[in-house]
Amino acid sequence: MAQDLLAAADKYALERLKVMCEEALCSQLSVENAVEIFTLADLHSAHQLKTQALDFINYHVSDILETSGWQSLVATYPELVAEAYGSLARVPCPLLGPPCKRLKKT
Amino acid sequence: MAQDLLAAADKYALERLKVMCEEALCSQLSVENAVEIFTLADLHSAHQLKTQALDFINYHVSDILETSGWQSLVATYPELVAEAYGSLARVPCPLLGPPCKRLKKT
Repeated sequence: MAQDLLAAADKYALERLKVMCEEALCSQLSVENAVEIFTLADLHSAHQLKTQALDFINYHVSDILETSGWQSLVATYPELVAEAYGSLARVPCPLLGPPCKRLKKT
Repeated sequence: MAQDLLAAADKYALERLKVMCEEALCSQLSVENAVEIFTLADLHSAHQLKTQALDFINYHVSDILETSGWQSLVATYPELVAEAYGSLARVPCPLLGPPCKRLKKT
């Protein structure tokens, strides 16, 4: 229900209701619905919810990649996949070393 | 030239030539051509080159995201963007903390 309400709140510029919907959806984030909520937040310019959904996706990525929602995202909204990649890439990671410029010998 | 040769080597199953082309392309990896080489390696099943190109992209991601090649990849081969995301996500990163389940108050 919060998803439909968010759409309506965005459409009619009901900011207080929109924030309430964002909070409700944020508290409901799960592996199964994170991609859908991420897409919905993008569609309705729910920036904080979008950021939280993206953080959730990045943190649970190995499980998220197995979901049908993720496959659907790749097929339908590749620019959101690219955004997820960009956001993950911005996390400073000391374990990501420079690539080798020679192929491994087999 | 190595790009055309790789295509031919793959087409005619010339494994030694294919390895030589992979090595040559790997040594030429740059911000400007990494996405193109990644795509090419995928197209011609050049697995080691593909891995190296992907490592290069992940390491130079902030520059790569600015290239026209990346924009083209997102539009044309979203599944490769998803693969890049998956590969980056598999790098264990201690700085990626669990997401907050509450929105920040503004």
